[in-house]
Amino acid sequence: MQGRAETTRRCLVEAAARLFDEHGYAGTSISDISALSGRTSGAIYFHFGNKEQLALSVVEAHFATWPEMIARVRGSYASALEKLVKLSFEVARAFRDDVVVRAGSRLWTERRAIDTPLPAPFLGWIDTVGSLLGEARAQGELAGGLAPETAAVGVVYAFFGMHTVSDALDGRDQIEDRLYDLWLLLLAGLQARPDATALLARVGAVRAPCLVP
Amino acid sequence: MQGRAETTRRCLVEAAARLFDEHGYAGTSISDISALSGRTSGAIYFHFGNKEQLALSVVEAHFATWPEMIARVRGSYASALEKLVKLSFEVARAFRDDVVVRAGSRLWTERRAIDTPLPAPFLGWIDTVGSLLGEARAQGELAGGLAPETAAVGVVYAFFGMHTVSDALDGRDQIEDRLYDLWLLLLAGLQARPDATALLARVGAVRAPCLVP
Repeated sequence: MQGRAETTRRCLVEAAARLFDEHGYAGTSISDISALSGRTSGAIYFHFGNKEQLALSVVEAHFATWPEMIARVRGSYASALEKLVKLSFEVARAFRDDVVVRAGSRLWTERRAIDTPLPAPFLGWIDTVGSLLGEARAQGELAGGLAPETAAVGVVYAFFGMHTVSDALDGRDQIEDRLYDLWLLLLAGLQARPDATALLARVGAVRAPCLVP
Repeated sequence: MQGRAETTRRCLVEAAARLFDEHGYAGTSISDISALSGRTSGAIYFHFGNKEQLALSVVEAHFATWPEMIARVRGSYASALEKLVKLSFEVARAFRDDVVVRAGSRLWTERRAIDTPLPAPFLGWIDTVGSLLGEARAQGELAGGLAPETAAVGVVYAFFGMHTVSDALDGRDQIEDRLYDLWLLLLAGLQARPDATALLARVGAVRAPCLVP
């Protein structure tokens, strides 16, 4: 029973995510979710109570994407800055390809229209990036003048801004190229011995030849 | 007559901006704007046609803020990078204090709920920043490895991300301190001879002693 309820919940979160991603919170109704998922509206209300709570569950599923990804990248064989850059590309691809991540992100931008508080996405990332930059400092990779915590906040601003612009201008199609270019700027300041292009190559990041901004 | 119509339009844009900033697009009605402005709904429809067009006028008024500010900062006595940093603080203060700028920004984040296309805010800024970074290159201020156009895109990402986080976490109260910290990171990569703290002091930027992220 537990297992079946879990399957139903996951199926409903996924269906809701598809609709929230495409039509936004206000543009999606419980009966749309019912039609897409093949479950009754009654089942949706039974599992989630209301549309606000379903939206919250999508945002929570978005957040739940990251710990496993972070642990995997942290466990890979690479320097701390390389791990940070690798992680950023994995996150960027999730923002482009993973409908739950996309929907969670859209719902967060629409949070003022949703009648339940949603968790803020930035603080956990600032901690994660700060901790990787602290390791980079310990490994002698980080430029001398920068405090890891201050630099971490700047990196998170820049990543989220890149995502916002990428979403607005080309529906995230060019997000990997945009991120590549962003790292050219950020690594120029972050690295004790700047070699941004070589570091990007070491983590497998490549750049398409031309980008329309 | 022309003058009076212009005054009425300006007064309505200002009243609409106050309400859009506080309650968002969906949360603001023509009759709210009528009540706040002391003009009739009929006058609002006469001047703007509908709520979409009034929202578009607020966004256009937001955009109209920048050319005079950019020209003033460009005309000041400072190096190109100093001008860029000065300009960013003026823009940040406008995002914090100017209700038309704030409303334009909120409407843009709600653009998918507004049934008329709104102009994207990023492209003009990428041009302006790119042109200042091109001057910095010509003056020998810019670090050797960076293409001004690529760096400009990164600076614009970072600024808009900083604004988004600042809006989300503290209603922009700490936007100047956040921007100061962001420049510590960005200038470390941008400057041919890094002296971020000194440059920030030269343009009059100061940092409060502690910032809760």
